[in-house]
Amino acid sequence: MAIIDINADLGEGFGIWELGDDLALLDVITSANVACGFHAGDPLIMRRVCAAAVERGVTIGAQVSYRDLPGFGRREMDVAAPELTAEILYQLAALDGIARTEGGRVAYVKPHGALYNRVVRDPVQAGAVADAVRAYDPALPLLTLPGSALHDVADGLEVVAECFADRAYTPSGALVSRREPGAVVHDADAVTRRAVRMAVDGTVAAVDGTEVALRARSICVHGDTPGAVTLARSVRSALSDAGVALEAFA
Amino acid sequence: MAIIDINADLGEGFGIWELGDDLALLDVITSANVACGFHAGDPLIMRRVCAAAVERGVTIGAQVSYRDLPGFGRREMDVAAPELTAEILYQLAALDGIARTEGGRVAYVKPHGALYNRVVRDPVQAGAVADAVRAYDPALPLLTLPGSALHDVADGLEVVAECFADRAYTPSGALVSRREPGAVVHDADAVTRRAVRMAVDGTVAAVDGTEVALRARSICVHGDTPGAVTLARSVRSALSDAGVALEAFA
Amino acid sequence: MAIIDINADLGEGFGIWELGDDLALLDVITSANVACGFHAGDPLIMRRVCAAAVERGVTIGAQVSYRDLPGFGRREMDVAAPELTAEILYQLAALDGIARTEGGRVAYVKPHGALYNRVVRDPVQAGAVADAVRAYDPALPLLTLPGSALHDVADGLEVVAECFADRAYTPSGALVSRREPGAVVHDADAVTRRAVRMAVDGTVAAVDGTEVALRARSICVHGDTPGAVTLARSVRSALSDAGVALEAFA
Amino acid sequence: MAIIDINADLGEGFGIWELGDDLALLDVITSANVACGFHAGDPLIMRRVCAAAVERGVTIGAQVSYRDLPGFGRREMDVAAPELTAEILYQLAALDGIARTEGGRVAYVKPHGALYNRVVRDPVQAGAVADAVRAYDPALPLLTLPGSALHDVADGLEVVAECFADRAYTPSGALVSRREPGAVVHDADAVTRRAVRMAVDGTVAAVDGTEVALRARSICVHGDTPGAVTLARSVRSALSDAGVALEAFA
Repeated sequence: MAIIDINADLGEGFGIWELGDDLALLDVITSANVACGFHAGDPLIMRRVCAAAVERGVTIGAQVSYRDLPGFGRREMDVAAPELTAEILYQLAALDGIARTEGGRVAYVKPHGALYNRVVRDPVQAGAVADAVRAYDPALPLLTLPGSALHDVADGLEVVAECFADRAYTPSGALVSRREPGAVVHDADAVTRRAVRMAVDGTVAAVDGTEVALRARSICVHGDTPGAVTLARSVRSALSDAGVALEAFA
Repeated sequence: MAIIDINADLGEGFGIWELGDDLALLDVITSANVACGFHAGDPLIMRRVCAAAVERGVTIGAQVSYRDLPGFGRREMDVAAPELTAEILYQLAALDGIARTEGGRVAYVKPHGALYNRVVRDPVQAGAVADAVRAYDPALPLLTLPGSALHDVADGLEVVAECFADRAYTPSGALVSRREPGAVVHDADAVTRRAVRMAVDGTVAAVDGTEVALRARSICVHGDTPGAVTLARSVRSALSDAGVALEAFA
Repeated sequence: MAIIDINADLGEGFGIWELGDDLALLDVITSANVACGFHAGDPLIMRRVCAAAVERGVTIGAQVSYRDLPGFGRREMDVAAPELTAEILYQLAALDGIARTEGGRVAYVKPHGALYNRVVRDPVQAGAVADAVRAYDPALPLLTLPGSALHDVADGLEVVAECFADRAYTPSGALVSRREPGAVVHDADAVTRRAVRMAVDGTVAAVDGTEVALRARSICVHGDTPGAVTLARSVRSALSDAGVALEAFA
Repeated sequence: MAIIDINADLGEGFGIWELGDDLALLDVITSANVACGFHAGDPLIMRRVCAAAVERGVTIGAQVSYRDLPGFGRREMDVAAPELTAEILYQLAALDGIARTEGGRVAYVKPHGALYNRVVRDPVQAGAVADAVRAYDPALPLLTLPGSALHDVADGLEVVAECFADRAYTPSGALVSRREPGAVVHDADAVTRRAVRMAVDGTVAAVDGTEVALRARSICVHGDTPGAVTLARSVRSALSDAGVALEAFA
């Protein structure tokens, strides 16, 4: 029987500002990537999201980022490795401590935004992230793309691959860049069908129609766009209807 | 035999900026109040200070603060209790996690600056700080003034009193406000003599000459003023010469 | 013929985060209190709001604040006067420079949130704000409550009074504290009627029913709550229907 | 007769933290690159530096930066052009407004740190900086390296070239990267001789001994390293002794 995890970004408000519908998403997902205050999130939001996740049995992950609130962590930064390692440690430890006061704990780590993209191809920053996780708790898996440089620097850490039902893939299994047309699949039925195929067959139809193997343990859904929660619910229903077991990977 | 702890604020730089001579102070003190990034300190500085403290056998404490880098945590802020609790938790957990990667751990909590002064008299904010410590680890003691409101809200937490050899005291055992003349004792010999008396007899001469009982388990020394490290060394030597055992309280 | 200004807070998003419907409000108001980056707003948002305001002929004011993004400027802070003056200057000059690149300019200054409330009763911080405005451009009016300490420290600056159609007033003409029941008037018709009476008669019915003189040149409407824009539109329509001229004060 | 300007970075403290000796440097330089709060500097520091510069007749420039206090603006960031333009405008306008309250004004713009290096080779970010200056005041010159991409996008703006007496040059007139050995000239006499030759002959000896034409209107001196102020004073004396007129370019 096929098993899949559904993950989404949560706790991405800041102070008075909100983003996405955390509570609605918590009823859909099995793993919550909780923002740690460097691109979004503040201590109070972190605590509330952890409490709500624990209450619903959703696994908590640390969504670590560059230190960039004004840019929501979406601007690539040339941070030196020792500094980046310390910054990841800081975020990871802060969220884990807060989660534990609510009866939970951080069970995995997922880089956010520009850092997510950077560590796919940059072994230095990937190594800095892996160093932080290894120093904090080498049992924590990292969640990333199948071909990420994080795999190369993991050195004992578990690296878990995720896929995106609403993103187009190249024949080599990479994501089509958002700068290119057709990068995002907008049709809800298509997204749902792709999610089921990813979970059941471990494959996706690339932009040229070829079938690509994905072997992802988790599907990432989005929560901060109009209709996102509805789509996420459809994906979850379709997966359940197809007999896929929804289960956190960590 | 008298036993005393010497504590000082460490890791109070930020990015390129430095403050005080952390390494010199680590040879003098037995407890390091390490800044957690809210009034000073950044993840890399925190990691380096923790590593140096562990290497020298100095106990690490979390110096928690209002979120106020521009004001160095010296401006009183009306932070609501749940938010303050979450902010303290965040700082405490971040430092503890970093300390553990260096073989140490946070062994106590000391509020900084305006928060230090506020919790002396405000039971709401004092309670918010105590709630954070209790939620994170109820075995962690709080370091504060003898008469602080923290004692009233501790509810099972250990509260440790500290004294200041270079500050004038009122006959009731309170610190003379820095806004009044004579609030700070500048004469090095006087400071040293007062430190010894505080440790050996548990008393200090108040501004009117009366003898006041202090019963403090720790003496706070400063590191960020000219001559501060030299004075701190003198205090340590004089305490040793007087047969006082220098020992962390936590 | 009665003349009134309608002002509202604009540009209170930050980075990815949004707050309120700036464009909708710009069709209702005659004066825009534009956030300057200290409690909300960033340079790009400031520029876009200024461009939109200039396009619609809406007057631009600098909504200056304590430096407190995490708390949205709603937490009172003990900022020393010279620092507060410099911080106000910084915000005012930044917005004015940006407004000028869009063909506008800052025409008045309105303190935000906790600073707004503080300067009503604290002559030191009120003086610090007035000093900044006087140093930058003594022709700029300040927008505040009728009884604010800003009036006492104005020393040549023009101080313009505003009123709130959706807030309850005490018999002495002060706002009922938000901590008390009935502080906010929720009934849309009542708010609209109050607005007309404030503009036409210069009076409001206090909580005990007595009629209080207000003499306000501007009515403040809110934009960040559900239904706020609709209510603001009703207020504007009702004022026009009552023959009140809607005209910026600056 | 040769004419040269001496510029240095000033006002690069933040809150309690200091960097360099601003007052000493103001007696050496003719142009002060004043930090605007994005990599260093805060409103109060900005105001004090402007007052001191005006008092000594030193010209004020806006040292604009990426928004990166934790990294002191030294980390390259992928900021989109409209956002970067708005951020430069914000800084420039804030400093100009503050300078005017002290009887001065911003007379030129110099990018800082990673932005300085980026605009040398990136026409998009260079264009974003130039757009901001052109929008604010097209009469303001930009201070940069001779071969910078800022020259290509200036489109009517004046671009002034500067040189570094303590940096090694390649035969093509570029700076030797700081990652390579010998990038910085440490011998004080050599630095002084190079400064005079730069000012009098408009040339420098490259690392291979060839003579390179520089044609720089300003020499940049540093103030934040040990011995920096002494070296800057020597450079100034040597230039005066060689009959070079010290004169701001703006």
